[in-house]
Amino acid sequence: MNESDKARLRCAAGDVPVVFNDRPELFGSMHTYMEVPRRYGSQVTAVIGNIAPDVAAGLPRLQWLQTSSAGVDKYSTPGLLGSEVSLTSASGAFGQAVGEHMFAMMWSLMNRLPAYARLQYEGRWQEGGNVLSPRGKRALVLGTGDIGSYFASLAKSVAMSTDGVRRDAGKSAANIDTMHTFDELDELIPQADVIAMALPASPATHHLIDARRIALMKPTAVLINAGRGDGVDCEALAAALGDGAIFGAGLDVTDPEPLPPDNPLWNDPRCLITPHVAGGAHLAATTGRIIDIVVENTRRYVCGEPLKNLVRH
Amino acid sequence: MNESDKARLRCAAGDVPVVFNDRPELFGSMHTYMEVPRRYGSQVTAVIGNIAPDVAAGLPRLQWLQTSSAGVDKYSTPGLLGSEVSLTSASGAFGQAVGEHMFAMMWSLMNRLPAYARLQYEGRWQEGGNVLSPRGKRALVLGTGDIGSYFASLAKSVAMSTDGVRRDAGKSAANIDTMHTFDELDELIPQADVIAMALPASPATHHLIDARRIALMKPTAVLINAGRGDGVDCEALAAALGDGAIFGAGLDVTDPEPLPPDNPLWNDPRCLITPHVAGGAHLAATTGRIIDIVVENTRRYVCGEPLKNLVRH
Repeated sequence: MNESDKARLRCAAGDVPVVFNDRPELFGSMHTYMEVPRRYGSQVTAVIGNIAPDVAAGLPRLQWLQTSSAGVDKYSTPGLLGSEVSLTSASGAFGQAVGEHMFAMMWSLMNRLPAYARLQYEGRWQEGGNVLSPRGKRALVLGTGDIGSYFASLAKSVAMSTDGVRRDAGKSAANIDTMHTFDELDELIPQADVIAMALPASPATHHLIDARRIALMKPTAVLINAGRGDGVDCEALAAALGDGAIFGAGLDVTDPEPLPPDNPLWNDPRCLITPHVAGGAHLAATTGRIIDIVVENTRRYVCGEPLKNLVRH
Repeated sequence: MNESDKARLRCAAGDVPVVFNDRPELFGSMHTYMEVPRRYGSQVTAVIGNIAPDVAAGLPRLQWLQTSSAGVDKYSTPGLLGSEVSLTSASGAFGQAVGEHMFAMMWSLMNRLPAYARLQYEGRWQEGGNVLSPRGKRALVLGTGDIGSYFASLAKSVAMSTDGVRRDAGKSAANIDTMHTFDELDELIPQADVIAMALPASPATHHLIDARRIALMKPTAVLINAGRGDGVDCEALAAALGDGAIFGAGLDVTDPEPLPPDNPLWNDPRCLITPHVAGGAHLAATTGRIIDIVVENTRRYVCGEPLKNLVRH
């Protein structure tokens, strides 16, 4: 937060004292927890930022935890936080950044740019084979929250059609032509040119894309995962890509993270790996949106109004 | 050409005998010349395909040379081909393939995917820094033929504005918001977020983007060149990227080609190099368009009608 952002937050907090514990060196990081200075541990009633789950569990007066991430699965383990703690996410801030990252991965893979980057690394000026165009193709979007919907808007802008999958297919989502349920997945996958995953972590989506479902994909299919890593069985994906069974895969998330050094995906020119960065604060617009959520919820917290993005109370 | 394409060509040729000299192993290649079988050398009156310029110059009865490329500069050297030889290009077939390649490079660089591909190659799971979005940004398109115009259509589809530069600014081009002349380049460059080059080779465009003009660019600028390599001074670009003076560069063409092994661009994570492949026949749609041009011009040649895409007669 810059000084102007801090002023906005202090103003929203009114009489409630605010302590900033900036760690600019961690800015945008998804991989390191923020800290609560020891001398405040017994007093804090609200925390804004992703602190270690066990630290959150140990704050005796905590009433509200606002994450700077869209995902909150690390804090929603039953029994971790007391029943008096409200948990709110920054959901809604990441649609553009993650949707764009997925779109960039899709274009990059369809044009074999990761393979060319490998050849470049080796100093080789060498042709890489046929490429694909998204034009007129079909994108299957798994998870149609703000991220999936943003990706779909980009896909539609370049003349793709979009199928969406969500738990409640009765709920529509912007930029999704046709909404489906997870029951229909096995019929949808063989028709998809691009499969774009933006699902939260949940037991229901663990290895949703496994060896059997990868085998249902077109040989020209491109798979993108920027939701949670365990949505895809990375061992099965590595085997399929190694066999040339699909055209390419872009993974911003893996299972586990980091991807183990011996996983063949690291060295597969059809695979592009980014280290869980799409949903960080690497895009300036994201930071602004997170701060807007944080300031609004601070005001609501201080005024006793219902919080936005409430995951559990 | 598949059998169906060959049948179309034979039909268009009527009574004129057609000899196919397929080299499927070179399919899509920009780097190897097609060959005229020795026993036909003294008889051929028309050649379809990019043969070596000196071979073309040595065909005593040649009347028509149809390239499968958009560029024909290798054959238009004054005095190379006799005045009786018509030279036609496949211009118009490459807009989608090259425009999409440029667009993929732009997205890839704005999201630092080439840098992440390098980290992946090294097995490193490590954050790469801030990223950019094209949304609301300004693309400067140098060369507004079918390639530049196709790129501009994609840029506009993701909410960019487009400035175009061409010799005759009085002629409009599809998807270009505002057309300019080369005289205005120094005023346009500092305002551009993306500079996309799709210029043919000509003395006027040699090192059009040189050290001085690179210094006019925004620090967040992304430069893409898929026209001819000598439009950019690659030594100057390497120095600027090495200093972090601009955000990134995507080069499908270089000067010279291949890029010399000691040029630092090979190892710059801000630079993505592809080996002059955007304008090959790597995209299925391109092949179809080249064949359409070839079949139509064959019919015209046989019927004595004016040829399409005539570069010189």
